[in-house]
Amino acid sequence: MLHIGFDAGGTSTRATVVTAEGACVGYAKGSGGNPVSSGKEAATLAILTTIDTALAQADSTLCDVGEIAMAMAGSSVGASHDWLADPLRNRGFGGNLSFESDLLATYFSGTFSSFGYAIVSGTGAAVIRVEDGRIARTSDGLGWLLGDAGSGFWIGHRVVLSVMADLDGRGAATALTPRLLDALHVRNDGPLEQGRPPALPRLITELYDLRPVQLAQFAPLAFAEPDDEVARGILDEAGSLLAHSVDAVHTHNGPLVIGGSVLAQHGRLADAFSAQLDARGIEPTISRVADGAVGSAVLALREAGIDVAHDLFRTVTDSLALLR
Amino acid sequence: MLHIGFDAGGTSTRATVVTAEGACVGYAKGSGGNPVSSGKEAATLAILTTIDTALAQADSTLCDVGEIAMAMAGSSVGASHDWLADPLRNRGFGGNLSFESDLLATYFSGTFSSFGYAIVSGTGAAVIRVEDGRIARTSDGLGWLLGDAGSGFWIGHRVVLSVMADLDGRGAATALTPRLLDALHVRNDGPLEQGRPPALPRLITELYDLRPVQLAQFAPLAFAEPDDEVARGILDEAGSLLAHSVDAVHTHNGPLVIGGSVLAQHGRLADAFSAQLDARGIEPTISRVADGAVGSAVLALREAGIDVAHDLFRTVTDSLALLR
Repeated sequence: MLHIGFDAGGTSTRATVVTAEGACVGYAKGSGGNPVSSGKEAATLAILTTIDTALAQADSTLCDVGEIAMAMAGSSVGASHDWLADPLRNRGFGGNLSFESDLLATYFSGTFSSFGYAIVSGTGAAVIRVEDGRIARTSDGLGWLLGDAGSGFWIGHRVVLSVMADLDGRGAATALTPRLLDALHVRNDGPLEQGRPPALPRLITELYDLRPVQLAQFAPLAFAEPDDEVARGILDEAGSLLAHSVDAVHTHNGPLVIGGSVLAQHGRLADAFSAQLDARGIEPTISRVADGAVGSAVLALREAGIDVAHDLFRTVTDSLALLR
Repeated sequence: MLHIGFDAGGTSTRATVVTAEGACVGYAKGSGGNPVSSGKEAATLAILTTIDTALAQADSTLCDVGEIAMAMAGSSVGASHDWLADPLRNRGFGGNLSFESDLLATYFSGTFSSFGYAIVSGTGAAVIRVEDGRIARTSDGLGWLLGDAGSGFWIGHRVVLSVMADLDGRGAATALTPRLLDALHVRNDGPLEQGRPPALPRLITELYDLRPVQLAQFAPLAFAEPDDEVARGILDEAGSLLAHSVDAVHTHNGPLVIGGSVLAQHGRLADAFSAQLDARGIEPTISRVADGAVGSAVLALREAGIDVAHDLFRTVTDSLALLR
C-alpha cells in the first residue's frame, strides 16, 4: 500500500509517494495548488498532474494509494473538499483524503516529535505549537492587513514607509531610498509638486498600482543594506516580532522547525530572532526546512495509522533526499 | 462680478458664491465631487448641481461668474480639467477655472495670513506649510498604505491590530476587543479552530471583506475607551505622529489651521498633539475649521487678483456663517 503527501503552496506544489515503511518512491513538483489563490479548477489540475507524475515514477496508480494528506494554507483546511475528492475518486482513488495545515507539514519536515513548535516567515508569518501531533495553538498568520508581524510583507512595507518618510522629511535619510527608486525606475528630478519631492507622487502611483501583499518584493532591499541604520532597525524589529510570536504560544522547550525565506538567511534578522529567544529563556533545538514535502509524507503515514518515530522519519528524509 | 469657491470632498461638496467685496451671497451643499472617488461623470453632476443651487440663492447665473476655484484632494489637482471645464463653458461660464489643493482651502478657512500651516486628519492625514499663499512643503498625506500616520485609518487599523494580538496572545488584553466583536457581530464561542480562538477566523473573514481604508470606521472605538491602556497608547501615538508631521515642515511660528475629525475632538489625542508641539518648541496660534468652504471662497478671490486681508477675510467668514 502506498500513501501520498501533498504540499500545496500558492506558487508551487510537491507530491511525495511513500510506502508504509517510509520509503519515498515517487516525487514530483508542480505549479500552484492552492484553491484560494489559484482557483479550484487550476488547483485541481495542478494537483492531479503532479500526483500522476509522482505515481508514474513509483510505477503505480491511484488505485494503489491508501491515504492522501493534503497540506495547505490554514484558511483552506476547514472548507469542503469535494472539489478535489470527486476528481480523485473518478480516477480510481478509493482511500482516505485528509487536509492539514501547511504549518504542520513544515513542522513534520523537521521533526517526528509529537510536541514542538514551527515558525514560517515567508510573505506571511505564523507560529504553531504542536501537541500530540496536532496544532494546539497558532500565533499570528493573520495576513498582511491584520498581522504577519516580521514577515516578508511586513519588512517590505516598512522599507517603503521608511523611504516615503525619508523623502518627505519625516524620517531619517536611508540608503533604502535610492534602492527603491532604482527598483521602480522612479527619478527624483524636477521642481517640488504640491510641496513634495517629485519622486513622491511618482512612487504613490507605482506603489498603489500593486496589490498590497506585493510590497513583500521589497523585503530583500533591507537585507541588501547591512550598514544602513534604518534597514538594520527594520530587520532587528522583524526578528524581535518573530521571537515574540514564538513566545506567545511557548509553554516549555521542544524542537523548533523554521521555514520560509525570511528566517532562511543568516545575518541581522536571524541574530535578532535568536537573541530575543534567548532573552525570553527559550532554548529550542532548531532545524531548518526548505518546504513541507517531508512533513506531508509524514502526515500521510500518521493519517494511515503508522507511528512515525526516529528510524521511520530518517527513512523518509533520506529516501526523499535521493529523489530530488 | 461674482466668484465661486468650491470645496469638493469625497463625500460632500460646498459651493460658495462671493462678491469681490467678500460678501457671501449664495451657498449650497451637495454630494461627493471628487472625480477619483466618485468618477468624473458623477462628480461633474454633483458639482454643477451644487453650483446651480448656490447661484440660484444669489439670484445669478454662471454668466455673472469671473472665477471658480475648485479645492480638491491633491492627487486631482495636477491632472487635466477638461472634464469639468467643458460642461461649465457649455453652461455659459466665461471666466477662469482654477484647481487648488483641499489642504489650502482648509488653511484659508482659518486664516488670511500668507504664511502658516494647516493640518488635516480625517480618514487620511497631511500637513502643509504655506508661503506667499501657496503650498511650500507637504508632509505625509500619502494614503493608508504608504503613510497617513495618525489619521483615522491609522487609528482604526491599530485598533484592529491590537484586538487580533489580544485574541491570539501576542498582545495585552484590551477593552477594544469586545467593542470590535460587538461592532462586527462576531462571537468568540466554541472550540479553538486551528489553534485559534474561534473569533479570530471570523474576524479575518469580516475584515478582509472591507476595503482596507474602511478600517477607519473603527477609530471611534479608541476614543470610546479613555480608561483602556491599549486605547490610550494608540491615541497618544497618533497625537505624537501628527505633531511629528507638523515638525517635519515647520520653519518658524505661524498660524496653524486644524481640520478633520480626528483632531476635532478634545481629549487624549489632542492633548498628546499639543504636548508634542510644545516639546518641539512649536507654539502656533491655532484655529479649528469644520471644512474648506471659507477657504475656497478666499482662494477664488485671490485667484481673481483680490488682496484678502483682515477685514475682507472677516467679511467672508461672517457673511458665510449667516448663510449656513
